[in-house]
Amino acid sequence: MHDTQQDFRVAAEDLGRFMREALTAAGADQASAVAVIRALITASRMGTDSHGLRLLPHYLKALEGGRIKGAPQMVFHRRLAATGFLDADGGLGHLAGYTAMEHATTMAEEIGLGAVAVGNSSHFGAAGCYALAAAERGYIGMAFCNSDPFVLLHQGATPFHGTNPIAFAAPVTDGSPYLLDMATSSIPWNRVQQFGAIGRELPDQVAADAAGRVTRTPAEVAALLPLGGSDFGFKGAGLGGMVEILSSTLSGMRHGFRLLPMGGPDMSTPRGVGHFFLAMKPDAFVEEGTFARCLADYLADLRARPATANARVLAPGDREWRCQARRDVEGIPLDSANQSAYDELARHYGVARLSPLA
Amino acid sequence: MHDTQQDFRVAAEDLGRFMREALTAAGADQASAVAVIRALITASRMGTDSHGLRLLPHYLKALEGGRIKGAPQMVFHRRLAATGFLDADGGLGHLAGYTAMEHATTMAEEIGLGAVAVGNSSHFGAAGCYALAAAERGYIGMAFCNSDPFVLLHQGATPFHGTNPIAFAAPVTDGSPYLLDMATSSIPWNRVQQFGAIGRELPDQVAADAAGRVTRTPAEVAALLPLGGSDFGFKGAGLGGMVEILSSTLSGMRHGFRLLPMGGPDMSTPRGVGHFFLAMKPDAFVEEGTFARCLADYLADLRARPATANARVLAPGDREWRCQARRDVEGIPLDSANQSAYDELARHYGVARLSPLA
Repeated sequence: MHDTQQDFRVAAEDLGRFMREALTAAGADQASAVAVIRALITASRMGTDSHGLRLLPHYLKALEGGRIKGAPQMVFHRRLAATGFLDADGGLGHLAGYTAMEHATTMAEEIGLGAVAVGNSSHFGAAGCYALAAAERGYIGMAFCNSDPFVLLHQGATPFHGTNPIAFAAPVTDGSPYLLDMATSSIPWNRVQQFGAIGRELPDQVAADAAGRVTRTPAEVAALLPLGGSDFGFKGAGLGGMVEILSSTLSGMRHGFRLLPMGGPDMSTPRGVGHFFLAMKPDAFVEEGTFARCLADYLADLRARPATANARVLAPGDREWRCQARRDVEGIPLDSANQSAYDELARHYGVARLSPLA
Repeated sequence: MHDTQQDFRVAAEDLGRFMREALTAAGADQASAVAVIRALITASRMGTDSHGLRLLPHYLKALEGGRIKGAPQMVFHRRLAATGFLDADGGLGHLAGYTAMEHATTMAEEIGLGAVAVGNSSHFGAAGCYALAAAERGYIGMAFCNSDPFVLLHQGATPFHGTNPIAFAAPVTDGSPYLLDMATSSIPWNRVQQFGAIGRELPDQVAADAAGRVTRTPAEVAALLPLGGSDFGFKGAGLGGMVEILSSTLSGMRHGFRLLPMGGPDMSTPRGVGHFFLAMKPDAFVEEGTFARCLADYLADLRARPATANARVLAPGDREWRCQARRDVEGIPLDSANQSAYDELARHYGVARLSPLA
């Protein structure tokens, strides 16, 4: 969320140029590259740095290793009027996500709701991108995805669920969407690594050691706790399970515990990730315009609530839209690790390096 | 969840008889009484004591005060093929909930999905009852409801959202459904009262005083924290907001912050509670039978995971189905407060008292 001290910032356009050239060199077709760039730059502009430009080297490695197909033949099967299945053919999850949500919104326009289960897919970046894509077209969107095991069950000793995210977005007339995008663990895995790198203790109740005991020492961490910690982790674990059921059982994929690890070492075998997307037409229940008016009233009341000292009350997405406005002016920052990684990609693929704005 | 020491237990049938007579005396028509009884006894059998038989006196008071209509004319408007609005006409939320979910599953059977927004309703008990009703018919069910303010926003100083529950149920072949039913706060309000009554400190990060500062002293509590506490409460608050948007903006109702308090003192003005129900046909995405097989595999892997010392790993619902099996044999316990309340109802309505099983 916080911009780094290193003053290396790039324009979204230059970042997109770099990504397009590298993805193309690694075998991605145009549709796939466009989808990856859209998702990663959306996340980077919003400040969701864990799911932004940082992930490009990973996708390139998976394309080069053969785990992910750069030119997939994705096929959509509409099964009933409100439901369909997208076979992602082992391609990039971003293309699968945007394609599936587009089908879901098309169905929602016709009949009020649409849901698409996606199978044979891969990591799709930030779930919020696809919920947002629905909201940008005027629909309520929800997106879910399973992932390989990092998170304990409630009272579990070893990881079972992935960080299984829930994303929910709603369109706001004359404003930026309501956007919730959350892992069902408390913190993401890379936050643990960040705390370790700077020698800081973790917050309580977010991570556990190899025996499933809560620890605040980053070096001891073997698993994340579900949202809610030791006492209320049955809620986070239950939500993680809901995400798993929507993502993998509806699409007939392996559930997260049986997925190959995202990080490898095997970068040649397709993982068979599952996603689930739901779109709803906001005016499909009562009189047209009611939803927009009620949502505006709700958000006005929410943003007017008093905050605790030195804090302010925000709607989900507010922080992200502010970051986006700032980064659209000042550029998207790359920390030193990403600067090195992008330099290495420039050499490897023979593409021009990023031009720092400052 | 835990059965009380007082050995006063009743059979579900006797409890149903008592509820039917009292509800009828207070003006509920047969359909309304059947729905209330179904919901309260479902919750009491499962051990969800906060939302079981304890609530009967509240509903009777609301019927007598005129806040809730005992003989509503609920009207369902199917708006698009997958969506509809149920005008609950100020009746009991339980009848609205079961009716709306039945319409949602009918649509899901036809076209894969169905969603019903409910307006002009009232407290519906446990959200899980309606998700469960869908699962019992073979559908994935989700239920949401707003409520009056008890829960802080993230970094908020005063309550804004209700405990806004999320319920999700999925049918399991030859087994009890997967059933998640959770408030988007960490603990329910009545748990704070229970801790206060026995002079116990609250867990950390679940409640706040009148200034929005976290407190562990029950007597100081003025609000609940969203799930995730001080550090990660933006997740619980965001989920609470999602529930609010689904429940009140789609149905055109007042959002929770503007609802009259459930507890009164005004028991004559309808509150205009909103609900939202979604049903999905599990086999509407890939080949028939795939969902059942994948869900069984997932649950088998989940239940086989190692637990921490002196604990065991459970799927959402497992604890509830065990409690239900026990209570179906041993009876449903009434603590001393409920015994007194039911004695008082017996006198007030001239109905025969509950017969203790032991």
